[in-house]
Amino acid sequence: MATRISKTPQSPTAKADKKRGDVLKAAGKCFRKTGFHQTSMQQICAETGLGPGAVYRYFTGKEAIIEAMVEDERRQARAMLLQMRDAESIQDALAMATRMFAERYRASGDAGLMTEVYAEGMRSKRTGAVLRRIEAEWVMGLTNILRVAQARGQLDASLDAAQTALFLTGMWDGMIIRQHFHAHDDPQALPAFFDNMIARLLARDGSKPETRSKAAGQPAADLLTGVEPAFVRPDTRQMSLI
Amino acid sequence: MATRISKTPQSPTAKADKKRGDVLKAAGKCFRKTGFHQTSMQQICAETGLGPGAVYRYFTGKEAIIEAMVEDERRQARAMLLQMRDAESIQDALAMATRMFAERYRASGDAGLMTEVYAEGMRSKRTGAVLRRIEAEWVMGLTNILRVAQARGQLDASLDAAQTALFLTGMWDGMIIRQHFHAHDDPQALPAFFDNMIARLLARDGSKPETRSKAAGQPAADLLTGVEPAFVRPDTRQMSLI
Repeated sequence: MATRISKTPQSPTAKADKKRGDVLKAAGKCFRKTGFHQTSMQQICAETGLGPGAVYRYFTGKEAIIEAMVEDERRQARAMLLQMRDAESIQDALAMATRMFAERYRASGDAGLMTEVYAEGMRSKRTGAVLRRIEAEWVMGLTNILRVAQARGQLDASLDAAQTALFLTGMWDGMIIRQHFHAHDDPQALPAFFDNMIARLLARDGSKPETRSKAAGQPAADLLTGVEPAFVRPDTRQMSLI
Repeated sequence: MATRISKTPQSPTAKADKKRGDVLKAAGKCFRKTGFHQTSMQQICAETGLGPGAVYRYFTGKEAIIEAMVEDERRQARAMLLQMRDAESIQDALAMATRMFAERYRASGDAGLMTEVYAEGMRSKRTGAVLRRIEAEWVMGLTNILRVAQARGQLDASLDAAQTALFLTGMWDGMIIRQHFHAHDDPQALPAFFDNMIARLLARDGSKPETRSKAAGQPAADLLTGVEPAFVRPDTRQMSLI
């Protein structure tokens, strides 16, 4: 694999890359339509218009295709993190992520495939390992973005950045699932509301309600406000995100 | 089906109910282990220890079994809503839900099955219809609980209760997924953090940071705080939850 990568579209490498991409695209189409486990390699071959020999040259099977798709997700996640890092403010960055996730998974086939890949990752060790890696990278990248925002005073410094990153990621997944099951609603309303909630949640002053003591029970948020805000110095060596 | 239900354990109805429950349990075990689509009816029969005739007497196939499982979820959701309604405060109620969801789906097989059912509901019309119904009931029940809390002054009255219910539901789903992929972490830490975030989010005074204007960009939360808090009168006729 140490061949020099030629930029000429007709080069064997570029042709192979294109074919590989075509197989991935065709497989994605099949998976979206009938699901990962109900799709056979024969159906993928038929959808691609290539013979089995050609398809198996690139992928040993469906699991290898899923892995390649997850790797592709990783590249997209990296690109998203870079865009978020370049945003004007943390609010803009998070609003951008909410919008991008909402749009990317609006089609039910896409939301279904994402959900199925998660389910697969909970059962298959191989898919699970790939997912865990991409998840760890994403969460670390997002954590760094949050730490920088804290250091800049754009974000409540008392928040645990890593936990907040996990929370936001979970929230976006939940939004994608809800977006599907409430598809009859205004498609803009749900992402807009999630966006509002995030902004509200991460507001710099946090929640220090003078009315809090009037509420019955001691809200757990007191644990947060009780923490002395620490100035978090971002680890600049990690700022390449991942 | 208008037979009188006898309470005697040996009655034919009770026996049938038990057998039906056994089939559901066995199927759940298979689905958790190998996934919904990779499990055959034969495997379910083998796990149950019953012949195919007995199994098919209760369920026409795997889809009918999934439906029965979702119906069972519905009963559990109703019970959870009733418990939440009886909680001391809305903070207690939501903390209880966070804890219950975290515990119930801690095992990866359970989280995997939940995720797979969602994926199935995004593709199969039949499963999707059942899921939409249970989802609508849950969201309506939670919305009512939030409205009552608003009316009691325990919760920011400017929040859209229905959207907040959707947001919370999405957040819990996300927590369950994250809980799986970060299983190496302290199992209590993630639910505790989600709990803190919820309390922070729903604090009665909302987010009216005097420092907000210093942050770059106009945070979307201003849309919320700009809304004149309306006293929401809960529809008491709906208070049977669902």
